[in-house]
Amino acid sequence: MKINEERLQQRLDAINSIAVTDQKGMMRLALTDADKTARDLLKSWMEEAGMEVRIDDMGTMMGYLPGSDPSALPIGIGSHMDTQPNGGKFDGLYGVMAGLEALCALKDNNVVTKSPLAIINWTNEEGARFVPPMLASGVVAGNFDAEWVYSIKDKDGLTYLDELERIGYVGDKANRFTKAKAYLEPHIEQGPILDEEGYEFGIVTGALGITGLDITITGEANHAGTTPMRNRKDALMVAADAMLKIREKVLEYGDPAVITMGIVSAKPASKNIVPGEAYFSIDMRHDNDDALTKMEQDVRAIIEKVCMENEVSVNIERYWRADPVHFDSDIIDAVENSAGKLNLKARKITSGAGHDAVFINRIIPTGMLFVPSIKGMSHCPEEETKWEDVVTGVQVLVETILQIDEK
Amino acid sequence: MKINEERLQQRLDAINSIAVTDQKGMMRLALTDADKTARDLLKSWMEEAGMEVRIDDMGTMMGYLPGSDPSALPIGIGSHMDTQPNGGKFDGLYGVMAGLEALCALKDNNVVTKSPLAIINWTNEEGARFVPPMLASGVVAGNFDAEWVYSIKDKDGLTYLDELERIGYVGDKANRFTKAKAYLEPHIEQGPILDEEGYEFGIVTGALGITGLDITITGEANHAGTTPMRNRKDALMVAADAMLKIREKVLEYGDPAVITMGIVSAKPASKNIVPGEAYFSIDMRHDNDDALTKMEQDVRAIIEKVCMENEVSVNIERYWRADPVHFDSDIIDAVENSAGKLNLKARKITSGAGHDAVFINRIIPTGMLFVPSIKGMSHCPEEETKWEDVVTGVQVLVETILQIDEK
Repeated sequence: MKINEERLQQRLDAINSIAVTDQKGMMRLALTDADKTARDLLKSWMEEAGMEVRIDDMGTMMGYLPGSDPSALPIGIGSHMDTQPNGGKFDGLYGVMAGLEALCALKDNNVVTKSPLAIINWTNEEGARFVPPMLASGVVAGNFDAEWVYSIKDKDGLTYLDELERIGYVGDKANRFTKAKAYLEPHIEQGPILDEEGYEFGIVTGALGITGLDITITGEANHAGTTPMRNRKDALMVAADAMLKIREKVLEYGDPAVITMGIVSAKPASKNIVPGEAYFSIDMRHDNDDALTKMEQDVRAIIEKVCMENEVSVNIERYWRADPVHFDSDIIDAVENSAGKLNLKARKITSGAGHDAVFINRIIPTGMLFVPSIKGMSHCPEEETKWEDVVTGVQVLVETILQIDEK
Repeated sequence: MKINEERLQQRLDAINSIAVTDQKGMMRLALTDADKTARDLLKSWMEEAGMEVRIDDMGTMMGYLPGSDPSALPIGIGSHMDTQPNGGKFDGLYGVMAGLEALCALKDNNVVTKSPLAIINWTNEEGARFVPPMLASGVVAGNFDAEWVYSIKDKDGLTYLDELERIGYVGDKANRFTKAKAYLEPHIEQGPILDEEGYEFGIVTGALGITGLDITITGEANHAGTTPMRNRKDALMVAADAMLKIREKVLEYGDPAVITMGIVSAKPASKNIVPGEAYFSIDMRHDNDDALTKMEQDVRAIIEKVCMENEVSVNIERYWRADPVHFDSDIIDAVENSAGKLNLKARKITSGAGHDAVFINRIIPTGMLFVPSIKGMSHCPEEETKWEDVVTGVQVLVETILQIDEK
């Protein structure tokens, strides 16, 4: 079945011309005027395709095509249209536009599925304006309380609810997408693996679990000129040593284990005072729950040993723990079979990033479809995917919908 | 010759009771009301001792006792009475009070020197309120322009001149202390060497030279979850490696070489983004000019090598260079002989910190006298010196004045 490449391209371009930065990045922060314009366009395309548009209480948009079986649960396909500041043209938007094109192509070809089909645009996936990310899917999956999400403020003090009302997208709680046969999320990989290894497509099996730690080391602040090296308890030097050693340890775990120290600081932060305190954050990820737990134990032990040897004290706080996510095996099989039917060079892959699918997986059988990201660039204007891969992703999606529908 | 310990103690206590923080630290920032109160007290003691009080255009106070030889240049003894916020009770104040007590003791004992004697209270040595430090001595020594110093603002936007006028201490440029036989500055060590090694007194031979570098490493910012470890160009990991390696190299130089990385940061400073940029400051000191130059070359080479190996770029900027200072050898001899005459356990030592003496050394034969700091604590309420060492310092000072006067 052929999809309409031209229509797909035009619609991607239309959304991506709404708010463009000087660096040619996308600027569609959630619930801004740019987001409203994108939503209005999407709504018009849904209506043009004869879809029934529903909005839930978090502002999530759904466009339904009816199925032939009145008792069948829907199959949903979605992602998000909000972006990071100066973000890329595919992160989020691709999943919504792939879903829209898949459903339009099925309709154009007069294919009616048993299940109703729905495309979904989740609100505030990025967490760039309202923190944390994935707020709307988090409410639907039961992770977040709706009233709490409503009250979250952006940096200017505007709340999620204020802004949702302002752009006119407060809908009905009854419309929440909570019961479905399947949820599929097409997305760019946002990493370099498929591109680097020459794959055309990725069958996503789940998402990495995350452990986040805050490390604060306390030594002794001293005068940079009058304190001999042997008399120092320099918290930053101990931190540097610890950072390198835990990195070495995590490298032993091999892919997909990753560790990132993203924030670092020293106190009192004066060029001529030996740091009495040093802080750094740790973000560790692994696809295996036991390995992630063991990795945290190893990292804690190394930090404590380095600090003990250097006679400084340390405080380790866990700020985050998300278990590894495993998508529905039937859906993974359907995606794999679809890619096989299209003779694609495809591999199984774990998502390193969070997605709405990670939350929705808790309540609905879920799967994801990855298309390659050139050099793994993401959240930046350089984010890019070859057009043939963009198209291929929609073709696998169509095939996967059909396979799930027939099952 | 005996000094009046009780008077010394009372005067130190009087100044140190003017502005005390909750943590029992001193709070006499330059040109504040607390500084004015301290100045007024000092002025009253100068007048009580029959000194002629002179104020220069930078607010520096001098109290002169006449000598017997009308053609002789004066011998000055001084330091400063301003403090760091929540500072200690000896840093700065000790030098002024030691000078005052030495002159008063000479007068009590009817000893008249050939040279006039002057005690000096330099304005804004700490640089805690008006940045940089040692502003008044810097003007006198020709390092800074007086008009520029006048225009420097504190964090509330008040200028040096505004505040100097407000407290009534604008004097005459003709009073600047520019011509003298000698300048002596007694001070606490502010480091642990004398205390740790059991010395009662330090003969200061000079001050460490300083090289300051700003290091900015640029790698590649990437997603913390989707970027495999092998694909990263993590600027912070390279910075950590470089920091540890340059520290190792400087340790090879041995005392008194020191290196401090006081400020560190990573960008974009997000817990889930691999740092694309890392910054750290370097403050390196050595008492030997060639060694300091070589040390900078070594440090630059190591950083460049580490960055090259890790395929990241680096920018190295020198923000500061102060040559090592060597005090006048005749004065060093006089201080050493005086300590010997008092049978003190004394050693030669280089100052790791900056002092007014470092600037004044450019225009007047200069020397410094160090008394031990318990555990090297300074710029904090815990700053402490044994009373017997406080007294000993004044006794060496009296003896040194007499030796220089007779020469």
